[in-house]
Amino acid sequence: MDPDTLSKAFVDHYYSTFDTNRAGLANLYQESSMLTFEGQKIQGSQNIVNKLTSLPFQQCKHIITTVDCQPSGPAGGMLVFVSGTLQLAGEQHALKFSQMFHLMPTPQGSFYVYNDIFRLNYA
Amino acid sequence: MDPDTLSKAFVDHYYSTFDTNRAGLANLYQESSMLTFEGQKIQGSQNIVNKLTSLPFQQCKHIITTVDCQPSGPAGGMLVFVSGTLQLAGEQHALKFSQMFHLMPTPQGSFYVYNDIFRLNYA
Repeated sequence: MDPDTLSKAFVDHYYSTFDTNRAGLANLYQESSMLTFEGQKIQGSQNIVNKLTSLPFQQCKHIITTVDCQPSGPAGGMLVFVSGTLQLAGEQHALKFSQMFHLMPTPQGSFYVYNDIFRLNYA
Repeated sequence: MDPDTLSKAFVDHYYSTFDTNRAGLANLYQESSMLTFEGQKIQGSQNIVNKLTSLPFQQCKHIITTVDCQPSGPAGGMLVFVSGTLQLAGEQHALKFSQMFHLMPTPQGSFYVYNDIFRLNYA
């Protein structure tokens, strides 16, 4: 699978999991994984999922505007850069966001999220 | 220097160079460096600077809103995630943008930009 196809497949999987079964994101992170969420630094799969599942909204839908990707170096990682909007249930206006992921290969031939940085883009 | 201080120093240096001497950015890239600019993929220091210096505006000013950073792995790299606005000379409204850099260490103890992804965040 070429990097662009792979990164789009990851992005589709990530946000559909976020929007339907947020706790299921735990499988995409490992103990070494880092999330910076609106400037707050969190490390480790369980801590990251605790943060994401405790956000002050239940139902949401991510709509993706752009996905860019680049190989991150000889270790086989991939950088994925996303922009889009986040629609919260009951809110009239969607929130714009940008997010980057650094995916690293697993010995099983899959990828996990090593780096994750999320920011809302306030108007 | 701690990663947050280092990344803020890089960001200040990068955008002040962009706004005052765009061709001087060549020193921050190498032949292996990659830029994805609004979806267009460009590789190599000279090609990247040719792209940046041929953008359809001369004078501009970047104003930084947020800078986040994380170490990218055992190779000593650093991911820097920026949001901000870009004010073009003669334009009333500033453009919002997001950009990510993957900085890799040089043998001389400095850093160069290995990955660079830039996107305007349209309203």
